[in-house]
Amino acid sequence: MKVLILQEKLKEGLNIIERISSKSLTLPILNNVLISTEKNFLNLSATDLEIGINWWVLTKIEKQGKITIPSHLFFNFINLLPNKKINLEIKDNNLLIESENYKTQIKGFSAEEFPLIPRITEGESASIECFSFCQGLNQIADIAVPSTARPEISGLFFLFQKNQITIAATDSFRLGEKKIFLKNDTSLKQDYSLILPQKTAKELINIFGEKKGEIKMYFSPNQVMFEYLMEETPHPKIQIVSRLIEGEYPNYQEIIPKKYKTQLILDKNEFLNQIKTASLFSGKINEVKIKADPKDRKVEVFSQSPDIGEHRSSILGKIKGEPIEVSFNHRFLLDGLLSIKSSEVAFEMSGESGPGALKPVADDSYIYVVMPIKSS
Amino acid sequence: MKVLILQEKLKEGLNIIERISSKSLTLPILNNVLISTEKNFLNLSATDLEIGINWWVLTKIEKQGKITIPSHLFFNFINLLPNKKINLEIKDNNLLIESENYKTQIKGFSAEEFPLIPRITEGESASIECFSFCQGLNQIADIAVPSTARPEISGLFFLFQKNQITIAATDSFRLGEKKIFLKNDTSLKQDYSLILPQKTAKELINIFGEKKGEIKMYFSPNQVMFEYLMEETPHPKIQIVSRLIEGEYPNYQEIIPKKYKTQLILDKNEFLNQIKTASLFSGKINEVKIKADPKDRKVEVFSQSPDIGEHRSSILGKIKGEPIEVSFNHRFLLDGLLSIKSSEVAFEMSGESGPGALKPVADDSYIYVVMPIKSS
Repeated sequence: MKVLILQEKLKEGLNIIERISSKSLTLPILNNVLISTEKNFLNLSATDLEIGINWWVLTKIEKQGKITIPSHLFFNFINLLPNKKINLEIKDNNLLIESENYKTQIKGFSAEEFPLIPRITEGESASIECFSFCQGLNQIADIAVPSTARPEISGLFFLFQKNQITIAATDSFRLGEKKIFLKNDTSLKQDYSLILPQKTAKELINIFGEKKGEIKMYFSPNQVMFEYLMEETPHPKIQIVSRLIEGEYPNYQEIIPKKYKTQLILDKNEFLNQIKTASLFSGKINEVKIKADPKDRKVEVFSQSPDIGEHRSSILGKIKGEPIEVSFNHRFLLDGLLSIKSSEVAFEMSGESGPGALKPVADDSYIYVVMPIKSS
Repeated sequence: MKVLILQEKLKEGLNIIERISSKSLTLPILNNVLISTEKNFLNLSATDLEIGINWWVLTKIEKQGKITIPSHLFFNFINLLPNKKINLEIKDNNLLIESENYKTQIKGFSAEEFPLIPRITEGESASIECFSFCQGLNQIADIAVPSTARPEISGLFFLFQKNQITIAATDSFRLGEKKIFLKNDTSLKQDYSLILPQKTAKELINIFGEKKGEIKMYFSPNQVMFEYLMEETPHPKIQIVSRLIEGEYPNYQEIIPKKYKTQLILDKNEFLNQIKTASLFSGKINEVKIKADPKDRKVEVFSQSPDIGEHRSSILGKIKGEPIEVSFNHRFLLDGLLSIKSSEVAFEMSGESGPGALKPVADDSYIYVVMPIKSS
């Protein structure tokens, strides 16, 4: 292999690739990046056996070849170099890296040892706009929770229907559901559903969150592939293949309340701030009490702990329905409020033992449902 | 006690005070802040028994009194409130905190249990400009290292002479020395020397680093006091009292090389970057080799490790004196380079087993001395 590439380009690729390389002690080859050439393209690959990633760049390839070297070292090294042309060359199982004022050798390993990263090459695909996809994922991704007893809920549930994706997650105390529309020209012939590992969701946000354009998704029974194309030529720029979580996702729809007994419309930031303040005084079970009466225009927030003291605050808002007094875990309320983007929030409650639902005002695409702390 | 105060002012004080409150399990009162009134002033105090701090603010005092409450809770609580007037009142050993839309009680403890923070009220004092004092401290503070065998070197050595302070620290592998001038109108009648705990030095940087104006220092055999006055009235705003480390500071002066065999003048950032890059390839003892020859205009930086590979780079600079090839621990070189503020650095070496000295070019007030790795 003999390649000429700008530091800036290589850095861009390593920045993405390096995230996936693991720090595996049992399988040290997984700490490596596979560097290979494909005609005019330089290709970087990494995998932790759950997620595999490929990144390509068009550059000057003088001689084809491939090698694998430690990913973190290569990433840190390239990051420290000035943005000039870099020569990469394989010699005696080492990668030689050379430019104006430095000459470096990194000990490599045979590319044959590197695990193959699967690709999905057939079947239907769905296209979605990067930004809204990642924004939606971001609202949901933190709700899932690692669980060995119920591996399904350690992932995010995806349902693809015609021109819409529904993404949901729950940890059995709260759940979030987001609907996102596919690109206009996509309409799936059949429905697909899958459970994506939380780690993949977070990496997708990190890798695609700031990107313009669209992502294509390809389905297979055990895997899903996300593909981002180059601007200049219709060659893939980034491909991420993830294993899926097996099992049946719980029928979470039945938890989502269909109507409310009491509805509050509140300024989101003020409510968030009052819950945060009340959280300082809540005891071991994180209990914060919400009290509202439609005759009044005030919602009261209350918390107390015998060791610390007590705190009572009030917030102006619109109150509809029945008077209510109900307790929630402040952590779950805070997470929900933080996942809402609008400046006003609707908080819909179904009595002191039924679920509460947080929604952005005038936006049906997102709902966050939280169970109350039942008074003993 | 009954006090009226703006949230912003109270927050400013707690921000400073809260740093000193410890998380002591054996003496829980040390986790508290002492809130007391002195005529028109509200006074906050905290101590970890090594450092004591007092902060005052002029505000509306309707009734004198004092109480002590958990410091972190009070800090977090006040930080979350809007910037409005706050009522503080003691009732049944609780602190009541009230404003427009909240009403809070924090469980307090009797102020009598709170340890007394000593003050130094007599003897000479030295005045120094906050900014240059903290900048100087910052160059030195990280060099000291906790040591039970040699408690002296776990502190910073201060020597006050007439109108100058010399600050030094060492961990026996490297040492830093900085000279700072006292304010023009100060000239001490006698010399003072002391060893300040590293923690105090770091807190001084945090508390005074962004402040304008000057700090006064007061000396006593076992303690030192730093005082910052209010702008509006000559009342202290902040007082920090620290215990001193007992013992005799090592005679570090004899380590500082008086002349050099080889002198390099290099661009600091480029040199720093090359040492960082070389550090990726250095082995377990962090060895990075520097090679220079006055016949050449290039300094070479080299490192290698049998497991990783090797790296060689070069940097243009002015070289005077004898040819040299000498190895250093890259961590110590990096720390030294990072502590130098100028864009050019002088690196003066005394052969392959003598100390090297890093200095800002055209500034005699700072020197960083580092021992080489002797070739075996």
